[in-house]
Amino acid sequence: MEMAEKKANIDLSGIFPPIPTPFKTDGEDIDYEKLKENFDKWNSKPFKGYVVMGTNGESVYMSESEKISMVVAARRLANKNQLIIAGSGCESTMATINLSNEMAKAGADALLILTPCYFKSGMNTEALYQHYIKVADSIEKPLILYNMPGNTGIDMDSNLVTRLSEHPNIIGLKDSGGDLSKMADIVYKTRDSQFQVLAGSAGFLYPALALGSVGGICALANVLGDEVCRLYELFIGGHMDEAVVLQQKLVEPGQAVTRRYSVPGLKHSLDCNGFYGGPCRSPLRSLNGIAQKEVEQAFIQNGFDLKSL
Amino acid sequence: MEMAEKKANIDLSGIFPPIPTPFKTDGEDIDYEKLKENFDKWNSKPFKGYVVMGTNGESVYMSESEKISMVVAARRLANKNQLIIAGSGCESTMATINLSNEMAKAGADALLILTPCYFKSGMNTEALYQHYIKVADSIEKPLILYNMPGNTGIDMDSNLVTRLSEHPNIIGLKDSGGDLSKMADIVYKTRDSQFQVLAGSAGFLYPALALGSVGGICALANVLGDEVCRLYELFIGGHMDEAVVLQQKLVEPGQAVTRRYSVPGLKHSLDCNGFYGGPCRSPLRSLNGIAQKEVEQAFIQNGFDLKSL
Amino acid sequence: MEMAEKKANIDLSGIFPPIPTPFKTDGEDIDYEKLKENFDKWNSKPFKGYVVMGTNGESVYMSESEKISMVVAARRLANKNQLIIAGSGCESTMATINLSNEMAKAGADALLILTPCYFKSGMNTEALYQHYIKVADSIEKPLILYNMPGNTGIDMDSNLVTRLSEHPNIIGLKDSGGDLSKMADIVYKTRDSQFQVLAGSAGFLYPALALGSVGGICALANVLGDEVCRLYELFIGGHMDEAVVLQQKLVEPGQAVTRRYSVPGLKHSLDCNGFYGGPCRSPLRSLNGIAQKEVEQAFIQNGFDLKSL
Amino acid sequence: MEMAEKKANIDLSGIFPPIPTPFKTDGEDIDYEKLKENFDKWNSKPFKGYVVMGTNGESVYMSESEKISMVVAARRLANKNQLIIAGSGCESTMATINLSNEMAKAGADALLILTPCYFKSGMNTEALYQHYIKVADSIEKPLILYNMPGNTGIDMDSNLVTRLSEHPNIIGLKDSGGDLSKMADIVYKTRDSQFQVLAGSAGFLYPALALGSVGGICALANVLGDEVCRLYELFIGGHMDEAVVLQQKLVEPGQAVTRRYSVPGLKHSLDCNGFYGGPCRSPLRSLNGIAQKEVEQAFIQNGFDLKSL
Repeated sequence: MEMAEKKANIDLSGIFPPIPTPFKTDGEDIDYEKLKENFDKWNSKPFKGYVVMGTNGESVYMSESEKISMVVAARRLANKNQLIIAGSGCESTMATINLSNEMAKAGADALLILTPCYFKSGMNTEALYQHYIKVADSIEKPLILYNMPGNTGIDMDSNLVTRLSEHPNIIGLKDSGGDLSKMADIVYKTRDSQFQVLAGSAGFLYPALALGSVGGICALANVLGDEVCRLYELFIGGHMDEAVVLQQKLVEPGQAVTRRYSVPGLKHSLDCNGFYGGPCRSPLRSLNGIAQKEVEQAFIQNGFDLKSL
Repeated sequence: MEMAEKKANIDLSGIFPPIPTPFKTDGEDIDYEKLKENFDKWNSKPFKGYVVMGTNGESVYMSESEKISMVVAARRLANKNQLIIAGSGCESTMATINLSNEMAKAGADALLILTPCYFKSGMNTEALYQHYIKVADSIEKPLILYNMPGNTGIDMDSNLVTRLSEHPNIIGLKDSGGDLSKMADIVYKTRDSQFQVLAGSAGFLYPALALGSVGGICALANVLGDEVCRLYELFIGGHMDEAVVLQQKLVEPGQAVTRRYSVPGLKHSLDCNGFYGGPCRSPLRSLNGIAQKEVEQAFIQNGFDLKSL
Repeated sequence: MEMAEKKANIDLSGIFPPIPTPFKTDGEDIDYEKLKENFDKWNSKPFKGYVVMGTNGESVYMSESEKISMVVAARRLANKNQLIIAGSGCESTMATINLSNEMAKAGADALLILTPCYFKSGMNTEALYQHYIKVADSIEKPLILYNMPGNTGIDMDSNLVTRLSEHPNIIGLKDSGGDLSKMADIVYKTRDSQFQVLAGSAGFLYPALALGSVGGICALANVLGDEVCRLYELFIGGHMDEAVVLQQKLVEPGQAVTRRYSVPGLKHSLDCNGFYGGPCRSPLRSLNGIAQKEVEQAFIQNGFDLKSL
Repeated sequence: MEMAEKKANIDLSGIFPPIPTPFKTDGEDIDYEKLKENFDKWNSKPFKGYVVMGTNGESVYMSESEKISMVVAARRLANKNQLIIAGSGCESTMATINLSNEMAKAGADALLILTPCYFKSGMNTEALYQHYIKVADSIEKPLILYNMPGNTGIDMDSNLVTRLSEHPNIIGLKDSGGDLSKMADIVYKTRDSQFQVLAGSAGFLYPALALGSVGGICALANVLGDEVCRLYELFIGGHMDEAVVLQQKLVEPGQAVTRRYSVPGLKHSLDCNGFYGGPCRSPLRSLNGIAQKEVEQAFIQNGFDLKSL
């Protein structure tokens, strides 16, 4: 493809929930009806857009056609002015390019591409650099880097991200690692290139914004969409004292649906809060009773009522 | 399927090379001609069989149809009396079952199934137990557990393996972690169930055999097939002193083609030794000159001439 | 000792350099003359106080009498109104109590106590809780918790810190782990107890302050004391835009003197910047030429001239 | 000191229990009477000698004078023909030299010296090499390298050990990491230098012997001294089939007193088996009831009766 002279122009500022995939009770068939019901509720919230087929969408458990189908559905169900960011990272460069282009045709506005990670010792700086450059050269929509060391064991450093930010088709980074120093360093080093950094969790959204991030892809926004958006708006409006207190209260609920209980925690929270969570695909298992209570307490003890307990 | 009353009867004792996938120079198309040339050389060695689509086959970079096609090719190219073990582990239980059954139809005698690993916090003992039991219940060929903590970050313990060994369709374990204590413990705990443990590397083949393993799936056997088989035979024949010295000399070459340089190290060693290695798929990269020399020295300094240096 | 009804009253708000121990050229004898020269320069900066015998003081390499002697010297050399915080954590509870009380007699205003860490599997929540409570009950000066997972492999979570914060003699926490979510959570949970959280590195000082920390113990303050204090004052004064930019520029120099090159990096930076760094004690080694250049570049490329290059 | 032309001549072949330090019920005073009672039982077993002030002696919790005193006591209580190996590793090179020489005067025949580990990023190959060479040059008794990555986070590789083995005063290695490949590689590379490798755990004693180790320093030998010595003798006598079965049965008890429950597990096992275990020093805590039962089961289920249950 011919490369634009300057950075592809998509504004990522704001909040994006990385939506889970609703399955029917057998954990296998996608329940598009429940997906529509969830979107009916999400669409009333001031989200900038949605991430489809990220970690929380259980993308590793989805076939290629299911992934495409979820992008199509999300594009159809979201408000017209909202962005659809699709997770298209595969282990191989070629598969990543192919899936990215399929998802772009299906309606994705940008692609969120996780670091390959199976061959850990081989995924050095040069391998990751070449991978992302080849992908960025070969896809028709903008690329957002996705760093998630907790699941992948791979952690891109600020120099690698900065080198990649010079590519006109690489427009941003979602970083879920929570290293705010690195985030500050990246914002500083990419200050002349319109590169946009997104916080990968509600747990550090406020400090990330304070250091120059433009928004967040936050699992917690699926459950507490109004509150996560309000934190963003308090920051934008300069209401720092209120923002800090809200941020502090969002840490525990945020961890309950990510690092602590992962997708089963997210889905249980949705079930408790008027949305459809439902089962995960095997081998992921639903939370047992004790874990369910701990998830619920993480919300309740920080002042967030769960509607259907 | 109907479950046999007793353990499915396949004898895994002996040496299996986990074969790499030969790609043409672009790193994309499978080079079946080179595969045949490699098999022509391998078939003269006393291998018990071959592993296809394991880690060394770059299975994470292969499409489903390519994986099936490689099983078909291996079945056709191997000697009739040799076993074909196919790697069919996917992240989801359902995908693992489907791929296993496709591979069985394509000629696999047994399936080697890696632990799912993306959702690390969710892959607890119960999740892994249910995953393997569901797969074992649903596939038509015997299942071999595959534990590889270095790549997956997941390490099955001896109690989990022992519980799984009671299933009539779970016949063995390949353990690449190198924890010989655990291996000894597993052999002891499964002593009444015909469960077969295979060493996952030539680097600890001899002590594994000494502790009751029945053989090995060793990347190094692709390159030094005669020597790895000779180590096995020295052990079987009771020639312990010779076996120990040969084992000691195989450690460094074994590490060069596994944990140290992974598949690029294996492919370079093949290229140096009269086989076809060729490129890896992107994002894996061929070794640079310094790394190539280090791989070569790991062979030469331990007394193994590389034929085409 | 008799326990006060309410939290011991020491105000930790502000910046503290954790000072290195200057050794003569053999790396063995403490060079008190150079220590005085360093203090002559540090004392003109608006530090709240100094940390003596922290990680950067190479405390693990110091005898008990040397540790006490350094506390005495720091108390004598610092301005009268500045606090002396002394690192007194030992592996055993009893040794920690004894050293803490010796250091208090030698002039320490508060004790900074690292988590014990050698027996990792034994240092569970209850063991750490009992350790800190026993120490807090038995020492005559206030206790500051010290969490440094990078060196210790032990990471206290927010619930443990919150439980400990209820003890009247435990007045604060230095956290060097950089998990800002946890820091926010701790500030929130301890909001009613006058518990004070300090950032353990200049690399995340601004976001830590933004989330409710009261100051920082920052190795970089030894070298760039004015700049680190200015970042604190910009935050206090509400000059957020300037603060963010300064924070971004401090990340790389901060990492060069901590996680990347540790004490040898700190000492080289001091030597380049008009202070005395000198050698580390063996087995720590001075930086080689390449590492020295990288440390220098981390300052220069972010706009900080090193005076004596 | 003047260096001998060839390797110092101490034969390490055989089994050494690394003895725990018995404390009175307060966990503080050393109970020398109980120590004598334990030695009265240990001395009837065919141990090659004893390790004093290793990890299991809670050396990190002992003052320097206590450490010396324990060496004196062990030398006095052990049989005359048994070796006393004393753990003298400190974080600094100078402290290690001083303690080593004090322990040698107190009766130690050799010094077991753990890798320094607090400054992890600084403990690279060259730092560790220089540390050990300086110590070996400066002490009057032979040095045994001690590698224990589980507690230290530092793992010496075979090349570093091989380089160090060339020093005439470095006579051996205790490796507790359990990487048998590395052990085989070290035995091979040091085959011309009389360097002696000791297994650091009963859990892999047999395969270590099979690969050329000369013996073991095994925590389990404190509890099951006859059985661990019998495993050694079965190997020496060429009774491999019996040795393998005994090895398999020793894995779980061995893990119960090391990596799983550490010193509290060891002390509980001693208490159950007619020896004195007693409390650990704080912050280590005695096992709770559930853990006690698990330790006991690890013995009972593998056929080892605990005498005083």
